[in-house]
Amino acid sequence: MSADTRPVVLTGDRTTGPLHLGHYAGSLRNRLALQHSHRQFLLLADTQALTDNARDPGKVGRNVLEVALDYLAVGIDPAQSTICVQSALPALAELTLLYLNFVTVARLERNPTIRQEIQARGFGRDIPAGFLCYPVSQAADITGFRATVVPVGEDQAPLIEQTNELVRRLNQQAGRDILPEARALIPAVGRLPGVDGRAKMSKSQGNAVPLSASPDEIRDAVRRMYTDPGHVRAADPGEVDGNVVFTYLDAFDEDAATVAELKARYRRGGLGDMAVKRRLEEVLQALLAPIRERRRHLAGDPGHVMDVLRRGTRLARERTQATLEVVREALGLAVLA
Amino acid sequence: MSADTRPVVLTGDRTTGPLHLGHYAGSLRNRLALQHSHRQFLLLADTQALTDNARDPGKVGRNVLEVALDYLAVGIDPAQSTICVQSALPALAELTLLYLNFVTVARLERNPTIRQEIQARGFGRDIPAGFLCYPVSQAADITGFRATVVPVGEDQAPLIEQTNELVRRLNQQAGRDILPEARALIPAVGRLPGVDGRAKMSKSQGNAVPLSASPDEIRDAVRRMYTDPGHVRAADPGEVDGNVVFTYLDAFDEDAATVAELKARYRRGGLGDMAVKRRLEEVLQALLAPIRERRRHLAGDPGHVMDVLRRGTRLARERTQATLEVVREALGLAVLA
Repeated sequence: MSADTRPVVLTGDRTTGPLHLGHYAGSLRNRLALQHSHRQFLLLADTQALTDNARDPGKVGRNVLEVALDYLAVGIDPAQSTICVQSALPALAELTLLYLNFVTVARLERNPTIRQEIQARGFGRDIPAGFLCYPVSQAADITGFRATVVPVGEDQAPLIEQTNELVRRLNQQAGRDILPEARALIPAVGRLPGVDGRAKMSKSQGNAVPLSASPDEIRDAVRRMYTDPGHVRAADPGEVDGNVVFTYLDAFDEDAATVAELKARYRRGGLGDMAVKRRLEEVLQALLAPIRERRRHLAGDPGHVMDVLRRGTRLARERTQATLEVVREALGLAVLA
Repeated sequence: MSADTRPVVLTGDRTTGPLHLGHYAGSLRNRLALQHSHRQFLLLADTQALTDNARDPGKVGRNVLEVALDYLAVGIDPAQSTICVQSALPALAELTLLYLNFVTVARLERNPTIRQEIQARGFGRDIPAGFLCYPVSQAADITGFRATVVPVGEDQAPLIEQTNELVRRLNQQAGRDILPEARALIPAVGRLPGVDGRAKMSKSQGNAVPLSASPDEIRDAVRRMYTDPGHVRAADPGEVDGNVVFTYLDAFDEDAATVAELKARYRRGGLGDMAVKRRLEEVLQALLAPIRERRRHLAGDPGHVMDVLRRGTRLARERTQATLEVVREALGLAVLA
């Protein structure tokens, strides 16, 4: 499709576990829309996942297929979006190594996202070198695909800034614009909280609803969902803000008018948690049933999924290799045909 | 040659300029011997050269061919030794990126060779990330070729230790020995001083004799060579230690008995600098004439040299790719056939 003039978007996921409702609300849903308006590349970021999972590389390897299954199950269309595996794209590793020469250690250490993540992971003084360097690896991903749009959470905007700094530095060195700058696409909807009310849904915290959840798991998750602890009897007025059930209704119930009405009744008093939860459960069961079914079906044919990954990766390999050659040639590095 | 049981040696040069007599004395000569007893790989390290030459990548690119010419001119035999280009071996970049996850930033910063080199280059706080990481890249080179013997200067022994630390860490992670440890081969002969008597011969300091030097350049270099400043008249006793002319005679004159006799006469008094220099000039002219001639001849046929590089690089690509696959599989990472 050389006539494809749609803007190029690069997004993807670290392959550390199957995806959950938080991913659906925060990114997968956007991608279903983007794949029509954009030339979309979805990167299964196993190499990046290693930067803080070196003690369990097997987990990173196994979950490549799991995340691919999630993509296809929610409706990512391989004819529209290119799904590819990061570790099978050597040009990205080569660009990373090249770019590392154009950024200082001090600059990487100042990156706010990295500082925050180092703290969150409790690395202390033992920061893996790969982790410190992952923003450079990400710059290689973005520029390797010549992406100009990169959906990221607000806390990750400094990573795009780091990429653009590198782009400017390389363009300056080359004496012409060989790489495009990218812009962060920050989603309007904030991050979905865990079912326990904690800020982030995460498998490791046990507060996530995986996309493959069974009807029972969905029911259980909704039952133990955090509401308003002060709302003891149905007749009492209740809090809607910070009430996970309502946050989820806002995120997944397509009937906004009914949700607004429920909120009003809940605030006034006279609406029990059970009734609201029953509605949310219906919404989630309806959302996840077809995803679960497609996922189960696809999981029974891993050969097909691997084919999708192979085709996507082949396409991505050509594209990223072409960028590598442009960069190498513009810098005057030897190209051994 | 699957029956080749010779130990594997990896060596090479950063491609920042043509090679000189210092390289000949310190490494090239050893390689001429090693290529018979060892399975020898010679890496044209353009990627590594970039780690402190990012502002002049063109220099790094141009000198790939120059260094290859030097190798062939001194008698490296492509049928015996494999000459290959680092930047054309993507598996080395991929191994580097992988290994970066198994070493901490603090450990890299403690590497004595790196500390010393950072100081020598005056990087201050502005250390390029690629420079800090180059010992990991070197570990990827050594293990990528499964080399067990690595000729290095004494000051670089910590780099081999760093490689072996990574090897042990990866073998531990894999639960079996997937990579061999390597040992440093430290040359018996020390580093050749510059013609001005400074410790190191270096093109940038203008005290080097390139392997392609013309007869006039050789004569001039010997004439301005540092001797014993206290040895004013031929009749005076002179110092041999630190006298560059004698250091070079020790390094290049194959007639050790005559050199010993000259030293004795020089010490006693009665032997002029001119006479000793005349002998050294003869020795160097005889050494460099056939090298210069072969180099001139080869430079006239760059297509042939590129063919040598292409063949060597193809072989090296297979070998390093095989290592990458072993490592990836042993760690449980996905392999997309």
